[in-house]
Amino acid sequence: MKVVGQELPRVEVLEKVTGQSVFGADAAPGGRVLYGKMVLSPHAHARITAIRTERAERLPGVRAVVTAADVPPVRYGRFVGDEEYFASAKVRYAGDRIAAVAAVDEETAEEAARLIEVDYEVLPAVTSGPEAMEPDAPLIHEGYADYFAQAGVGDRHGNVCGHKRIVRGDVEQGFAQSDRIFEHRFHAPMVHQTYIEPHTALARFDASGKATVWVPTQAQFPLRAAIAQILRMPMTRVRVIPTEIGGGFGGKIHPTIEPAAVALARKARRPVRIVMSRSEDFQTTNPRHPFHLRYKTGVKLDGAIMAREIELVLGTGYSAGSGVMISQGAAVRAPGPYRIPHLKIDSYCVYTNTPTCGAYRGPAGPQLTFASESQIDIMAHELGIDPLDMRLRNAMENGDETPAGARLEDVHARETLLKAAEVMSAAPKAPGDHTGRGMAVAHWLVGGMASSAGVKLNEDGTIAILTGVVDLSGASTSLAQIAAEVLGVSLEDVHVRTADTDFAPHSTISAGSQALKSMGSAVLLAAREVKRQIQQVAADALEADPGDLDLDDGKVFVKGSPERTVSFRKVGHLALEHERGPIVSTQSVSRLTPHPAMAAHAAEVAVDPDTGHVRILRYVAVQDVGTAVNPLSVRGQVEGGVMQGLGQALSEACTFTDGKMNNPNLLDYKIFSALDAPTVEVHLIQHPCASGPLGAKGVGEPPIIPPPAVMANAVFDAVGVRIHDLPLTPERIVKALKDKRAQRP
Amino acid sequence: MKVVGQELPRVEVLEKVTGQSVFGADAAPGGRVLYGKMVLSPHAHARITAIRTERAERLPGVRAVVTAADVPPVRYGRFVGDEEYFASAKVRYAGDRIAAVAAVDEETAEEAARLIEVDYEVLPAVTSGPEAMEPDAPLIHEGYADYFAQAGVGDRHGNVCGHKRIVRGDVEQGFAQSDRIFEHRFHAPMVHQTYIEPHTALARFDASGKATVWVPTQAQFPLRAAIAQILRMPMTRVRVIPTEIGGGFGGKIHPTIEPAAVALARKARRPVRIVMSRSEDFQTTNPRHPFHLRYKTGVKLDGAIMAREIELVLGTGYSAGSGVMISQGAAVRAPGPYRIPHLKIDSYCVYTNTPTCGAYRGPAGPQLTFASESQIDIMAHELGIDPLDMRLRNAMENGDETPAGARLEDVHARETLLKAAEVMSAAPKAPGDHTGRGMAVAHWLVGGMASSAGVKLNEDGTIAILTGVVDLSGASTSLAQIAAEVLGVSLEDVHVRTADTDFAPHSTISAGSQALKSMGSAVLLAAREVKRQIQQVAADALEADPGDLDLDDGKVFVKGSPERTVSFRKVGHLALEHERGPIVSTQSVSRLTPHPAMAAHAAEVAVDPDTGHVRILRYVAVQDVGTAVNPLSVRGQVEGGVMQGLGQALSEACTFTDGKMNNPNLLDYKIFSALDAPTVEVHLIQHPCASGPLGAKGVGEPPIIPPPAVMANAVFDAVGVRIHDLPLTPERIVKALKDKRAQRP
Repeated sequence: MKVVGQELPRVEVLEKVTGQSVFGADAAPGGRVLYGKMVLSPHAHARITAIRTERAERLPGVRAVVTAADVPPVRYGRFVGDEEYFASAKVRYAGDRIAAVAAVDEETAEEAARLIEVDYEVLPAVTSGPEAMEPDAPLIHEGYADYFAQAGVGDRHGNVCGHKRIVRGDVEQGFAQSDRIFEHRFHAPMVHQTYIEPHTALARFDASGKATVWVPTQAQFPLRAAIAQILRMPMTRVRVIPTEIGGGFGGKIHPTIEPAAVALARKARRPVRIVMSRSEDFQTTNPRHPFHLRYKTGVKLDGAIMAREIELVLGTGYSAGSGVMISQGAAVRAPGPYRIPHLKIDSYCVYTNTPTCGAYRGPAGPQLTFASESQIDIMAHELGIDPLDMRLRNAMENGDETPAGARLEDVHARETLLKAAEVMSAAPKAPGDHTGRGMAVAHWLVGGMASSAGVKLNEDGTIAILTGVVDLSGASTSLAQIAAEVLGVSLEDVHVRTADTDFAPHSTISAGSQALKSMGSAVLLAAREVKRQIQQVAADALEADPGDLDLDDGKVFVKGSPERTVSFRKVGHLALEHERGPIVSTQSVSRLTPHPAMAAHAAEVAVDPDTGHVRILRYVAVQDVGTAVNPLSVRGQVEGGVMQGLGQALSEACTFTDGKMNNPNLLDYKIFSALDAPTVEVHLIQHPCASGPLGAKGVGEPPIIPPPAVMANAVFDAVGVRIHDLPLTPERIVKALKDKRAQRP
Repeated sequence: MKVVGQELPRVEVLEKVTGQSVFGADAAPGGRVLYGKMVLSPHAHARITAIRTERAERLPGVRAVVTAADVPPVRYGRFVGDEEYFASAKVRYAGDRIAAVAAVDEETAEEAARLIEVDYEVLPAVTSGPEAMEPDAPLIHEGYADYFAQAGVGDRHGNVCGHKRIVRGDVEQGFAQSDRIFEHRFHAPMVHQTYIEPHTALARFDASGKATVWVPTQAQFPLRAAIAQILRMPMTRVRVIPTEIGGGFGGKIHPTIEPAAVALARKARRPVRIVMSRSEDFQTTNPRHPFHLRYKTGVKLDGAIMAREIELVLGTGYSAGSGVMISQGAAVRAPGPYRIPHLKIDSYCVYTNTPTCGAYRGPAGPQLTFASESQIDIMAHELGIDPLDMRLRNAMENGDETPAGARLEDVHARETLLKAAEVMSAAPKAPGDHTGRGMAVAHWLVGGMASSAGVKLNEDGTIAILTGVVDLSGASTSLAQIAAEVLGVSLEDVHVRTADTDFAPHSTISAGSQALKSMGSAVLLAAREVKRQIQQVAADALEADPGDLDLDDGKVFVKGSPERTVSFRKVGHLALEHERGPIVSTQSVSRLTPHPAMAAHAAEVAVDPDTGHVRILRYVAVQDVGTAVNPLSVRGQVEGGVMQGLGQALSEACTFTDGKMNNPNLLDYKIFSALDAPTVEVHLIQHPCASGPLGAKGVGEPPIIPPPAVMANAVFDAVGVRIHDLPLTPERIVKALKDKRAQRP
């Protein structure tokens, strides 16, 4: 291949580095824009007894105030219809939407928000999943008991809104056949995507009743559907225009302020922009689910895993959101990339009085892998087996099935693991008493949502790609490479445009590592159809058979007679002026079979036993990527994923007191920064994947998954303490060391 | 049909009547925009000996000055490469582009334009076609003699850049067989489209080297091609965004200020907007070609036309532009909608020192018909035959050929003529000595350019149409009606979006009455393919054969079992979640066979013999439209065309003295206004046309064509004078009456 596989700078890089890209808050629709501000609940759980907006409405400069009375009484939600856009009778978390205001300036909007008076009757709140399943826990959603009963969930508590059980083999028989049985509990807290750009939305409502919303979103089509559903508008009257996006990581999929912006714009008859503060963003968007995990594993003395019984409790927040789907997916991936004959997995999705969690890069992955791979490490240590050997002993292979029964191909667990071990062991371990090494492996199942894409030949022979998928992490460049490869042109001759919901053919969302698989497959089909049309026109011009023609360097030539050529420019003109009409194709792909993508990471750390500080001396990330369409971009993905994963491993957690988030800011919520970042030694395992476009696998999710487990295992190797609760803060490590010393005889 | 044929308000009407539509000068790209101003030649013909920009560049607030030195030395043009964007060595008309400036405010830009010093060596100029063909006429373009010689033109003079000769039969034999031979000369002056909105362009040039241009254009794809050609940029780096358009009438097809705006934005590194003044617009855009016409016609005493020898000289202006094409098309239509055995037609396209003329609604039509139909009237009068009978005697029929040999179908000349006569004669002629009636008939050949369009099913069952054709006169509504008809939904469920050159599949221009034919045919194909995909998905859901399914009211049902239905909404979800992928189709059509569209008009006038004022008492317009997709819109088109045609008949003309336009303003250039407007009695002849989508014919051009001839014939009937020069001003009528009285014995 000539273009695919090249390390190429991103096609949109110049606009970004010169500051010309239009991000959410930069969008300018023309005309004066009002400032919108949300009014949020200060209570985690309370009945609303009155909302008085009069004082706000009377404030000079206020142009609109909207509450539940201004939107249809719609209950919505991806899996359970349990959300109302503005709270009417009850608030269910500290951040629940009460109202929104629009005013001529920011100060007036803030003042108006303060002037909205709400009377509450405060109720007891619960913020952890297991607590919410206790018999005496307050019921967060009344009236859903029958619904959940019918759905076969909720027998444990009315707060349980999802339950997935998977049984393979007979776990009791597996335990009976085991030499040793290990059982551990783990906890991973809520963590936030902490993208650079907080949520923003700019809405215009025009005379024909059409809403246009500029928004940094990963999921313009689902967002359009949600706005249409919440405001009961036909989709022809909702246009979502995706701006450039300052990071999403799964946090910009679900609707947040967009319907409020539309409702305000409709009422004020002026465009309205809402820009979340960092604090609002932390408290009201869709972070990663906190997980409580119990792993019970039976093994033979040679390390063979016979059975695993797993219980997962994820706190979904005040509504089911995507928690039901994520808890189901978690059940499927919970045992790790291993071949285990007997499995019993229960995954519970539980309401809590917190923000509704969503899809953070590799949903459920870091939590599951932290538990599973910590336990593998514990068991290997107890059995006196090298942890690598234990992993290799049980690693899944081609043709193995997921717990859900899906047969997997393109499995490269062993090779990925071996490469990580090889790279790490190529240098001797750093000297010192408190240094250690750890590793972990994880798999992500890369599906593919339905998508369509257009490709057209411009009259000058250049190529244009029309897509509705937002470029989060280099997708546009890779799509251009795929089309360039098929059509035999250089990357400069291909132009990718992300269109909005009005203009784009329906496209997948930019999430789950499947954007390139889904959209790349659609672009591949469309490019091949455009190639066919080009060959057809060229065949007439060259008086040759279309099958005898090949494409290269912007020209069509007769195989074997390279002097008989016609340029794409000429083909473009012929198509317009003569028989065919414009050369253009739009092609669709349906949902695609998932393929597994492996990540094996290894790290070497030095732990300061006095302060508990973990210093990362080396970090190796090996990833199974199929064909790396743009290796430069893939490496960047891996490095970024590792950094986010290390933040979750070592420092990040949203914590709550009395249902209120304690640390909704970047001072108290500590993300991994450039100062903390190790050099990541990235190695790619490349075997073209049958179900990816030109062999590509998804690459975005896997690298964020292993770091917490890697760090837990490395810390154990360095100082002999096992931490079961994320993050591995200095305080926790110091306390564990102190406890360990106290236990010594 | 349920939706096609309904009188429906335009889909975009609410935005327009509330002032929310974004027209050219309203476009706002975000950020501060510079004011651009053109520097134009004051001389009609001169050598440039020096251009000094230093004083302008030094003026505070000036951000860029561009001249020929700032653009590539490209010679361009649709048919002859005779244009340079900025004049370098010579100016060829008063208005030729010398330079452009961009400054922080309008006053500074105007001052900077004044500070640009140009030294000229003035040359003799010529502004009429016949004069430019005189042996001693100054040569406007040096260096093209060989080129024209090779092209088989220019043997008459180096200013002749196009010559089309058509010979059918033997015109001398035809004259020999004739009883009478008539020869007359006519003249139609240059007239201007006088759209409400002058030309504007806003250009941005971004870091990646991409130019984005917001412009009210009828022809975004050709404009993109022209900008790319003039500035030597690939089409992937030029994006033309068509704004709403305040009238075009053919005058917004060719590039004018857009390349200057891009060159300024590139140099200034800031967006630049140029808004033409009305005076600049009159002097530098693309008005209707002035024609000198000679008709020599041989007839039998019974009115049968045996032969016509026609010579047309059209003054194209300082460059060939589209004049070559228009002069060729004029040759084909010059004999009128008649069956004439012997023809010889010479059509010359000649350089003049005036603006380059372009495509004004029904190019060449009013001029040709004025000449041809005036002569028919003269001959009928001389032969003592009713002019209607003479027209019916010779009217073309199905299967007749054009002079160029193309066989015509769907010919309704007789019915159209008879209907006009019937309507006019239904009321007695107004009393008075100076009242009279006249009629004329004309045909327009509606072709169809290559186009493509997309149709998609939204997830909620609504339909979206993606087109790149600008809605000049209701096209979007008609396209929506076509899709609604095919898919069995209401107009409200269909949304039409005109996308820009990046997003739209290649689409035809909005001109020549072919936009609906071309784009409607593409929408029809795409809607039918979407219907097929809907049927396929529904067939699975309903467990039926796709062929047994029909679509109505947003549902698919089994024929004969109307209770077995599935909604489009359900189909949309099934397609996304299961097998098919998004339901979407983009389809192309190639150039389409022309069909003739007839217009027969009749009028009754009262002429004041003292003032020469023509009062229109009745006006009847009958038009052959195939299927009227939206009769309300069609009537509007006919009424508007008649008004513009009456302006050309009675008052409009661009006049020049020493090569400078005398009347580049709406005070001295008199258009037909609401105060002048008669009620138009519109009647539509509807027979579905085989080559139009759902039977529709083009409707935009025909109604502007007959009015000058109708007025000339009615004035003759009223006061007995024959005017051979347009317009029929009061001065000319008074002079003709005076001359007639002087001739009386």
